[in-house]
Amino acid sequence: MTELTDDRFHDECGVFGIFGHPEAANLTYLGLYSLQHRGQESAGIVSSDGEKLYSHKGMGLVADVFREADISRLHGSSAIGHVRYSTTGESHIKNAQPFVVEYARGGIAVAHNGNLVNAARLRAEYEAYGSIFQSSIDTEIIVHLIASSKENSLADRIISALKRVKGSYSLLFLNEDRMIAARDPHGFRPLSLGRLKGSWLVASETCAFDLIEAEFVREIEPGEVLVIDKEGLHSYKPFPAARYTPCVFEFIYFARPDSTIFGANVHTVRKNLGRRLAEEHPVEADIVVPVPDSGVPAAIGYAAASGIPFEKGIVRNHYVGRTFIEPKDSIRHFGVKIKLNAIRDIIVGKKVIVIDDSIVRGTTSRKIIKMIRNAGAKEVHMRISSPPTVCPCYYGIDTPSREELIAAKQSVEEINSYITSDTLGYLSVEGLYKAVKDAGGSFCDACFTGKYPVDTYREEYVPQLALFK
Amino acid sequence: MTELTDDRFHDECGVFGIFGHPEAANLTYLGLYSLQHRGQESAGIVSSDGEKLYSHKGMGLVADVFREADISRLHGSSAIGHVRYSTTGESHIKNAQPFVVEYARGGIAVAHNGNLVNAARLRAEYEAYGSIFQSSIDTEIIVHLIASSKENSLADRIISALKRVKGSYSLLFLNEDRMIAARDPHGFRPLSLGRLKGSWLVASETCAFDLIEAEFVREIEPGEVLVIDKEGLHSYKPFPAARYTPCVFEFIYFARPDSTIFGANVHTVRKNLGRRLAEEHPVEADIVVPVPDSGVPAAIGYAAASGIPFEKGIVRNHYVGRTFIEPKDSIRHFGVKIKLNAIRDIIVGKKVIVIDDSIVRGTTSRKIIKMIRNAGAKEVHMRISSPPTVCPCYYGIDTPSREELIAAKQSVEEINSYITSDTLGYLSVEGLYKAVKDAGGSFCDACFTGKYPVDTYREEYVPQLALFK
Amino acid sequence: MTELTDDRFHDECGVFGIFGHPEAANLTYLGLYSLQHRGQESAGIVSSDGEKLYSHKGMGLVADVFREADISRLHGSSAIGHVRYSTTGESHIKNAQPFVVEYARGGIAVAHNGNLVNAARLRAEYEAYGSIFQSSIDTEIIVHLIASSKENSLADRIISALKRVKGSYSLLFLNEDRMIAARDPHGFRPLSLGRLKGSWLVASETCAFDLIEAEFVREIEPGEVLVIDKEGLHSYKPFPAARYTPCVFEFIYFARPDSTIFGANVHTVRKNLGRRLAEEHPVEADIVVPVPDSGVPAAIGYAAASGIPFEKGIVRNHYVGRTFIEPKDSIRHFGVKIKLNAIRDIIVGKKVIVIDDSIVRGTTSRKIIKMIRNAGAKEVHMRISSPPTVCPCYYGIDTPSREELIAAKQSVEEINSYITSDTLGYLSVEGLYKAVKDAGGSFCDACFTGKYPVDTYREEYVPQLALFK
Amino acid sequence: MTELTDDRFHDECGVFGIFGHPEAANLTYLGLYSLQHRGQESAGIVSSDGEKLYSHKGMGLVADVFREADISRLHGSSAIGHVRYSTTGESHIKNAQPFVVEYARGGIAVAHNGNLVNAARLRAEYEAYGSIFQSSIDTEIIVHLIASSKENSLADRIISALKRVKGSYSLLFLNEDRMIAARDPHGFRPLSLGRLKGSWLVASETCAFDLIEAEFVREIEPGEVLVIDKEGLHSYKPFPAARYTPCVFEFIYFARPDSTIFGANVHTVRKNLGRRLAEEHPVEADIVVPVPDSGVPAAIGYAAASGIPFEKGIVRNHYVGRTFIEPKDSIRHFGVKIKLNAIRDIIVGKKVIVIDDSIVRGTTSRKIIKMIRNAGAKEVHMRISSPPTVCPCYYGIDTPSREELIAAKQSVEEINSYITSDTLGYLSVEGLYKAVKDAGGSFCDACFTGKYPVDTYREEYVPQLALFK
Repeated sequence: MTELTDDRFHDECGVFGIFGHPEAANLTYLGLYSLQHRGQESAGIVSSDGEKLYSHKGMGLVADVFREADISRLHGSSAIGHVRYSTTGESHIKNAQPFVVEYARGGIAVAHNGNLVNAARLRAEYEAYGSIFQSSIDTEIIVHLIASSKENSLADRIISALKRVKGSYSLLFLNEDRMIAARDPHGFRPLSLGRLKGSWLVASETCAFDLIEAEFVREIEPGEVLVIDKEGLHSYKPFPAARYTPCVFEFIYFARPDSTIFGANVHTVRKNLGRRLAEEHPVEADIVVPVPDSGVPAAIGYAAASGIPFEKGIVRNHYVGRTFIEPKDSIRHFGVKIKLNAIRDIIVGKKVIVIDDSIVRGTTSRKIIKMIRNAGAKEVHMRISSPPTVCPCYYGIDTPSREELIAAKQSVEEINSYITSDTLGYLSVEGLYKAVKDAGGSFCDACFTGKYPVDTYREEYVPQLALFK
Repeated sequence: MTELTDDRFHDECGVFGIFGHPEAANLTYLGLYSLQHRGQESAGIVSSDGEKLYSHKGMGLVADVFREADISRLHGSSAIGHVRYSTTGESHIKNAQPFVVEYARGGIAVAHNGNLVNAARLRAEYEAYGSIFQSSIDTEIIVHLIASSKENSLADRIISALKRVKGSYSLLFLNEDRMIAARDPHGFRPLSLGRLKGSWLVASETCAFDLIEAEFVREIEPGEVLVIDKEGLHSYKPFPAARYTPCVFEFIYFARPDSTIFGANVHTVRKNLGRRLAEEHPVEADIVVPVPDSGVPAAIGYAAASGIPFEKGIVRNHYVGRTFIEPKDSIRHFGVKIKLNAIRDIIVGKKVIVIDDSIVRGTTSRKIIKMIRNAGAKEVHMRISSPPTVCPCYYGIDTPSREELIAAKQSVEEINSYITSDTLGYLSVEGLYKAVKDAGGSFCDACFTGKYPVDTYREEYVPQLALFK
Repeated sequence: MTELTDDRFHDECGVFGIFGHPEAANLTYLGLYSLQHRGQESAGIVSSDGEKLYSHKGMGLVADVFREADISRLHGSSAIGHVRYSTTGESHIKNAQPFVVEYARGGIAVAHNGNLVNAARLRAEYEAYGSIFQSSIDTEIIVHLIASSKENSLADRIISALKRVKGSYSLLFLNEDRMIAARDPHGFRPLSLGRLKGSWLVASETCAFDLIEAEFVREIEPGEVLVIDKEGLHSYKPFPAARYTPCVFEFIYFARPDSTIFGANVHTVRKNLGRRLAEEHPVEADIVVPVPDSGVPAAIGYAAASGIPFEKGIVRNHYVGRTFIEPKDSIRHFGVKIKLNAIRDIIVGKKVIVIDDSIVRGTTSRKIIKMIRNAGAKEVHMRISSPPTVCPCYYGIDTPSREELIAAKQSVEEINSYITSDTLGYLSVEGLYKAVKDAGGSFCDACFTGKYPVDTYREEYVPQLALFK
Repeated sequence: MTELTDDRFHDECGVFGIFGHPEAANLTYLGLYSLQHRGQESAGIVSSDGEKLYSHKGMGLVADVFREADISRLHGSSAIGHVRYSTTGESHIKNAQPFVVEYARGGIAVAHNGNLVNAARLRAEYEAYGSIFQSSIDTEIIVHLIASSKENSLADRIISALKRVKGSYSLLFLNEDRMIAARDPHGFRPLSLGRLKGSWLVASETCAFDLIEAEFVREIEPGEVLVIDKEGLHSYKPFPAARYTPCVFEFIYFARPDSTIFGANVHTVRKNLGRRLAEEHPVEADIVVPVPDSGVPAAIGYAAASGIPFEKGIVRNHYVGRTFIEPKDSIRHFGVKIKLNAIRDIIVGKKVIVIDDSIVRGTTSRKIIKMIRNAGAKEVHMRISSPPTVCPCYYGIDTPSREELIAAKQSVEEINSYITSDTLGYLSVEGLYKAVKDAGGSFCDACFTGKYPVDTYREEYVPQLALFK
């Protein structure tokens, strides 16, 4: 069998929560449905009826994890949910979120999008005092910090816990009578507040509000801790100010095009990336073809800016599962072909500009270009709507290690040669910033520049799974 | 729970076969993978090792029905496979194909795409003599006709059987030592011949050849019975000549855009439909937005012909399962929203042309238009890349009954009012023929015109499931 | 893994039916529960609500095959059920009963205990005319005979069908409005009539009546066809008279001790077998130990007749599944030990008489004796409460072939030596007849004597599965 | 559906461990198979290959929880396993054992048979300091005590942990390189040491050694902590001496008759109980009938002492699952009948002595007596091979509460009247002690006398599940 994971980046998670709605669990399920692109490995919902927490989690897609009876057992008018992705062997139900525990003050559930860079150090410290951990995920340390806090209110316990962690987090907490959202001071990951009739919602992306026809109110602010209870909203800003550095890769690849994050619509930003790319790397050609689906908006932008016609020259098979069974004596890898096919009638005899959002290992690009040449293309010009990816992410995106990133070791010319394109053009970092200017001028661009917003974090970073597994 | 079947037409099946390859079953599995769009209800493969038939079938998608161990138990160098769709309650494993039986001459398996209009009459005749049927599908009568034939060779038995049936069929048969393909004299459904090294392949659509890098040789001709055995190909044309009337709806909606059927590439035909539509129904607007994914090629054609920019203003959620769980007190139907979302940033303040391939009941179009208006559109102009659908199909497409087809009862103006568009334009039948002219001038267009190629069939048509269930 | 089938005989089936009770399916489920010992491979129930048949079948035990929802979908006030055993590879859901088909006159379901010796010949005849068979079980020919009968009423069609088959059968038929029971003229297999309030019941053994507190009315007579409909009972005797030869092995091993079959209580007969055995093969010893559970009644009888104390010296593990996982390098076969263990405290230093009902291959007896010797027995005397098993059964019991029956090839002395007992004694055929005299003097004892009641059947017997698979 | 739990007591668990055998996991699986009677709710095995722990647990019987692939993934030459029973709603996989956690010193697994009476108090204490618990079982506190111990070696950490707990425990621990067995100072639950070639085994009962043909070496002593590593055995007695009070109910009901516990064979003790019962409560009768299977040994003893013939007058259905589906309008409870049936032929017209091991709520006895009367018994005399059960158990047996114990509230005469026997006789406490005298004179008999070995435990006992859920 062949895993159909392509060599893209993968965000770790999506979160959704609702407080004060009679169908909290069902709406959370719908919210997770629309955040499914942020994680396909596991899904879970924890609800509260004011007295007790109810939990259902499972491995797989939201549509597979939850049956009607599961939803109906998630009683109560508040709920939080989580979808998770992981490319490692640590794919296990014990790592599925929301994470739920009992401690002296009752039950608490937590759903986390991000990555804590000092989790290993804190965990070692707690274990030294005899604490016992259930999972291999960094999120668990937050629960231990909360349980051992000397503060009285849940909000204060959470704040005291978060003061000790470093890294990226968009968090949702649920206990019996309140829901609390928190976003790290740098604001690495998106998190938004919504409203549906009398209830409050929090979601990783606004597309979750659209589905259930809720209103997008505002983003949770960097460094904000927002407590939602029967009295309403209570906002705290307990952390020292920090530079706002949202993840620019959310715009390039992760977020859904219909979402608004960091103040801008994702599709519009991607189209701008395509426009900039056309300006920076023009080439004479017959058609502009996106790698579906992630390359589509940039290809539309490139086509509009260049005047070269947009064409859907590559078809995507939407019924592809996570794995498929390869022929035994196969010398070809079907991994890309099972998902994508070039349309000969469109391609044959043409000079083709292929638009993709990024190149990771280069193997997928190489296969796509071979496929397009086999369909009769006269020339193939690869255009990438982001700068070369040269560094891994420590803030919640599951990138390959530096050794596997082709751009970390090879020049653009060498990559062009490896993937067999006629020409290859990457968007510049400057072009990137121009394209995202509506969303402000400050981002985490460490994957392209190696400039980590809090670069001292790096020295203490211990690869999470090597230690915890 | 809500079924996520939209109100489109559904083709019943896709077939794939291979003869003379050591990994016959695995390649058939891959072939079915690429024909998955033709049927998602059940999947099956029957293989032969020259002495015995091996079968594995199941309900669900190809990726779910087959595990590695299942494939490895399908021994031998020949195999046929089938994917099936059904919108009725008769969704049961006993109706999954290929249909396999033992009769006096050994085992035989059959995979069928199409519909036999005189199956009920023939079945009643056989039952009167004491024959026993296992399933409620029309295909089973073919096996009874073969089993009771007085001819000696399998090919002759099949020919004598097919001489008695009327309707549409693209068929694959497999017994211990040969594979036989047959296509009805009218050629309603597509069926093509391919070659991979020394082995022969037959598939509903050429996209199945592309995936496994096989060569497309030619179409199986209308009325052809093609026997494939160790000696090679043997072609027969045993039926009286009939008018060639391939199904034009394969071009409009069913077939995959990267396939070549009836002599033309599907995507190219669809783009032409969009161009014609732009000529017939121009309108002043800001953007052309397809209903994904079926409206995309026509929208590209419409945009190119009109000069109005193409925009992906509607996003499709690719993780949607077959059902999802609705909130209990929901007054809205989430069926469309769970799958589609409009991008406000693109739509707001714009005059929008929405392109879809057809309108069946009208309820989906109404919801899509509402969604686009909610996203801030100034005007919404609906354009349909086919004529009004006024009659049901008796040749293998599972259409709603005439009562449910909105265009069968309402004028274009009434439909425009129902779906709440500002203007509505359908492609004319003449425009349709102009767009498909590369594929020849003769088609079955009964769903648009009510002119059934063999209209005497209608009187004897007995709705299949009412009788057989 | 090791199959935990011991080397005993296995009856093929148990049947149960009820007509005229609002909880027909549930009571049939309970009836099958109490007949589970007659077949553990598959279970099924078909019910009728007067208009339609409802079916649920599955592989495994009754308790596993049926969930509450399955029972609730089996509508109506009449139902028949079946449990089946098979030791061959043809263990497949398509062979599960009741067998249900649609034919010209509607639906019909059949449940069969027994074996038809001319089924292969009849099947070949039907296949020659083009009939198609679904399964590899002999029962299916009955349905074809019924479907092709020229008679009008279902009873007459069944009678005309049964006139053509030879062999053993206790049958239950169900169509929309009646239930029909039939027993072959020799009466090989048991079948009894019961009554529960206003409803009629038919079951393989009376223990099924006891469970649901129904009244045992009488046995279905050999050669009787009993029609049960709204008007009540209608009994027919349409077949030529034949010698009554019920299967004596039902008494020795198959039937449950609390059942009454062929006019006698099974436990009482078994105790008598033990008494006779004590008279025929006395030996000086300290304790009488049964092989649980089948040897218990005969051991009680042996102990009572001999005055030697009965002891439960072997314990049975009741939680044994159908298979278990052996250590890889195991040189011992755990097959018996996983199920049975000797109690050293009871055995040590004793002269032990071990009572079992029969010896098939001898391997189990050998292991049991080794186990008893390891527990410290001074002497081990094996006593078997039936004569040596020398011939296979053609009337519904799945015996090993003649080559595998140790007594078919070896003398009692040789068997004694093989199984390592100090002495070995089998009950004589005369002793057997004396013990069962309450049940009448006529039996099928072919497995002990080779005298088949209808010995001409043998020549035409074609091993069923070799042909049909 | 009806739960087929009878109203008996249920022991919580069985444990098995092996150190130093290449097929450790497979032998542990077999060991659990033979301890299945001690717990049917969940099963689990944890193995070690010297570097890492491997775990597989599941709900259900051993035969269902483990497939061959599961066993093969449990690498290494040491393993511990556990079977668990629970009658409460807290039947959840998170409570399945062995319990495995990671803490600062690596991994540790624990399997526990018994009950800790001060677990709730200790847990509250730990939670107050911020510790987080995963399960609702008392065993988890031991892991927290170990993790927070200041000692260096695992053995010392375990000893320091066990010094803080009170109650009953037979424990097995496994870490990467050693297995440690521990039994509480009172020796409430059995635990034995065995040897198989070069490997050491520990099991709740000796029947586990018999199955795999291992040698029974000795019992783990009360208060002993036995460390098994590559160097061999290291025995510690770190606790203050305490009165040896093994659970007498293990002899009466729980343990398997072929096991040797507390120095005596269980079957032999039960036969002695029956003999004493015959002396204390003689009655003129025709037959002695056990309630299968637990009443069999005592019935054999009663029959031998009284001279009244032993008869298997009640048959047990061995195919009974854990639940079955009752008819909806059933006014009778099938719970007993589905499992037991009286043989009329044996019972009718007889004066019957029925032997059972205990009476809990009385409802089962009442149904059994009704069944025997319906089978035609002239008289029914109930004899119980233990004293009246008047108090609940706090040391590991899941008894009903005092309110549900019929003997806690009613006199023997009243019980006789309730269960409708002609006469009723319980064994006296003196008779009980005489029967078990081979096993020594000191027992925990609190369920019969209310004299708890450490009666101060009672005041601090907090019903476990109410607090922890």
